[in-house]
Amino acid sequence: MKPRTDAEHNERMKKIQAAQAKKIATKTVEKGLLIVHTGNGKGKSSSAFGMAARSIGHGMKVGIVQFVKGTIDTGEKRFFDRFPDEIEFKRMGEGFTWDTQDRARDIAAARAGWEEVKRMIADPAYALVIADELNIVLRYDYLPVEEVLEAVTARAEMKHVIITGRNAPQALIDAADLVTEMTEVKHPFRTQNVRAQKGIEF
Amino acid sequence: MKPRTDAEHNERMKKIQAAQAKKIATKTVEKGLLIVHTGNGKGKSSSAFGMAARSIGHGMKVGIVQFVKGTIDTGEKRFFDRFPDEIEFKRMGEGFTWDTQDRARDIAAARAGWEEVKRMIADPAYALVIADELNIVLRYDYLPVEEVLEAVTARAEMKHVIITGRNAPQALIDAADLVTEMTEVKHPFRTQNVRAQKGIEF
Repeated sequence: MKPRTDAEHNERMKKIQAAQAKKIATKTVEKGLLIVHTGNGKGKSSSAFGMAARSIGHGMKVGIVQFVKGTIDTGEKRFFDRFPDEIEFKRMGEGFTWDTQDRARDIAAARAGWEEVKRMIADPAYALVIADELNIVLRYDYLPVEEVLEAVTARAEMKHVIITGRNAPQALIDAADLVTEMTEVKHPFRTQNVRAQKGIEF
Repeated sequence: MKPRTDAEHNERMKKIQAAQAKKIATKTVEKGLLIVHTGNGKGKSSSAFGMAARSIGHGMKVGIVQFVKGTIDTGEKRFFDRFPDEIEFKRMGEGFTWDTQDRARDIAAARAGWEEVKRMIADPAYALVIADELNIVLRYDYLPVEEVLEAVTARAEMKHVIITGRNAPQALIDAADLVTEMTEVKHPFRTQNVRAQKGIEF
């Protein structure tokens, strides 16, 4: 990693470049990805929003359905709502399920959100569809995972779908193309009593 | 997790709500966070961009300096460049170090990028500063980690700084408030020969 001379450095970099070129040459498949962001760490939703920003930058239309986080005034909602022709941003549900304390209402909200996701997946206008916190809904059995698998499996070839939230069901991980686990190494909530910070966590 | 009746559900949710309220009540500290995204998985940069979107949504000004990824036509650059009053987006370096094969030039680019980051950290106008892929630069010893620690430690109380990239140095992790490791569970590059997809990876 730390060669001593510039000549050694350049020699090593030539080798890495050749290895990279060889690796990239085998990667020729273009396809829409089923992406899952899970784990107990930060970055599951924000990474999906970063990919939304990237997609809009490339002229691709994005659909976002946010489950669970119904009532929070979030920066992502404020920002993305400025571009109604490029991104459709729906928020479903009336907050965390421990706040609503009404399972029937939560289930109805989950169902309504899922219908929006299905509509966006079926609509060729959307290149990327994000189902934010859908894993929470699946975890509470508010929606059968089979129904989610059916819709994502039947998606158009170039359509990207991102599903976020802790505790992704194994069946979804098995079906996914790209799965990342966000692992908490250090969190100021616990160690420093820092509250959720605007711009970072919402 | 899966109570049988609605009454059981509501009872359980009341308990979770009370526990959440108690936990949140202890979280009263407001502070600018030093955030590190590391690990070999996806989502380190995109999550930082998602936080940039959130911050802009809340009217906070953002500065981004992107190391290493000099020449790629990325969606994030295209998108964020549309808002020059709200975000300053600088790209430094001329690509991956194995492509430039010129250590002196890489070091000069790293230094120039770091000067931009320092300027943004020192400028009260920026609420969030993102040093994207800075860990790579540190890994190659193109910049001493001590200098980075000095600048981030001296930052204003409410300033957020995000540093991304694999192999974050331990000294940086020790100094950080919030550290997430993006862990690769499944990647289509390896398993399906899928190439980097527009909107998702760049």
